[in-house]
Amino acid sequence: MHFTSEKRLDDGVLEREFTLGEIPGVLWTPASASAPAPLILLGHPPLGLHRMYPRLAGRARQAAADGFAAATIELPGSGDRPRWAAAEQARVDLRRALDAGEPVTDEIVDALILPLVEKAVPEWQAALDALLALPEIGGPVGYSGGVISIGIRLAVVEPRIVAAGFYAGSFVPRAMFEEARRVTVPLHVLLQWDDEGNDRQAALDLFDAFGSREKTLHANMGGHTGVPQFAADDAARFFARHLK
Amino acid sequence: MHFTSEKRLDDGVLEREFTLGEIPGVLWTPASASAPAPLILLGHPPLGLHRMYPRLAGRARQAAADGFAAATIELPGSGDRPRWAAAEQARVDLRRALDAGEPVTDEIVDALILPLVEKAVPEWQAALDALLALPEIGGPVGYSGGVISIGIRLAVVEPRIVAAGFYAGSFVPRAMFEEARRVTVPLHVLLQWDDEGNDRQAALDLFDAFGSREKTLHANMGGHTGVPQFAADDAARFFARHLK
Repeated sequence: MHFTSEKRLDDGVLEREFTLGEIPGVLWTPASASAPAPLILLGHPPLGLHRMYPRLAGRARQAAADGFAAATIELPGSGDRPRWAAAEQARVDLRRALDAGEPVTDEIVDALILPLVEKAVPEWQAALDALLALPEIGGPVGYSGGVISIGIRLAVVEPRIVAAGFYAGSFVPRAMFEEARRVTVPLHVLLQWDDEGNDRQAALDLFDAFGSREKTLHANMGGHTGVPQFAADDAARFFARHLK
Repeated sequence: MHFTSEKRLDDGVLEREFTLGEIPGVLWTPASASAPAPLILLGHPPLGLHRMYPRLAGRARQAAADGFAAATIELPGSGDRPRWAAAEQARVDLRRALDAGEPVTDEIVDALILPLVEKAVPEWQAALDALLALPEIGGPVGYSGGVISIGIRLAVVEPRIVAAGFYAGSFVPRAMFEEARRVTVPLHVLLQWDDEGNDRQAALDLFDAFGSREKTLHANMGGHTGVPQFAADDAARFFARHLK
């Protein structure tokens, strides 16, 4: 892990860009930390870190205000990272199906998501190794948001993650419903009830599938991008409850 | 409204029993109130105020800690209030169906709930008239919990109620789903996801039916009586947001 830039945000949060091999990432740490901070890994959709920066920085500042470090890395095939042909083809097929008003087939969803999960999860684990080696970061570790299938796989395979907050989105491969049964950490799931681009029943089925003894679903109105501030506050309290 | 007893609870909350005509009730007011307090009406299942007292007093103390007065009245046909034959028959029919493992028909649910709603709602409105006439109680008014059909009707017909918290339970007459579309106040709905005595799909359908622009569903694990403390805290924050 190699830090490439460092700046103080106006609220005192220290924001550092880094590279982990070929993978760019960002780490935010609270203005004043007397002890090693717990860490929240910030997931995001595969739109590139640069485009996602404002929303990620906002979530990181909230985490820092609660005493947590926050970090994220670029997803494989996003930003400046190399594409791979099968994913590009899946995106073309997805766009074509959506434009034609046709159903998005399991084949398209699998091609879009499963290789992304396979590639991304070991990278997040490597980032976790590097981040936890920093003296200013302790644990425990939470995972929040982003591509829900990546979050599910991470929650299953990575024992250092003790709590996860998911945003219920579409395009979840059927295989991930089975995997969801093996998730046991406390879960906080956000669902935008009137999200027209989301399959609500699939989101409810996925919530039902999670094996966690503590799992909470918060459904709200406001459309895909209209998560109310009070719902974001609830999610922050979930992490405060489990990471402190 | 006639006060029949008065005591200070150990946290300073003033608890007063009253009668409103034939109807017994309880009013709790905060230990120290400099201005007239907002009011939360505490709904409850038709098991009698005496039996429900510990849970009601717990909810009232939480409300008082947030600066709210809280009040409740006995439901028609519960506690020492006179039964009516049709309701008794509906209870017998319900018990018989449940014991036999048979479906609870729409006829049983309608006979059980609709007359209760018809009788109870004007009584809660009369209680509201009397409570709001007290100098220590101002507004706004919230309604919380209890028989969800009573809450729905109250939210529709009583403009002084500005926010409602419901507990998703079974035995909701079909007619109430239509009425739910006419509810427009902010709603906070609790659903125990693994409540075996509750029809989860009906609860989700009812949540979907509510006409409110702000409505939130909080689903948790823990069975019918196992609402987690953090879910109760979330509900309290909902009222704090809307009644202050």
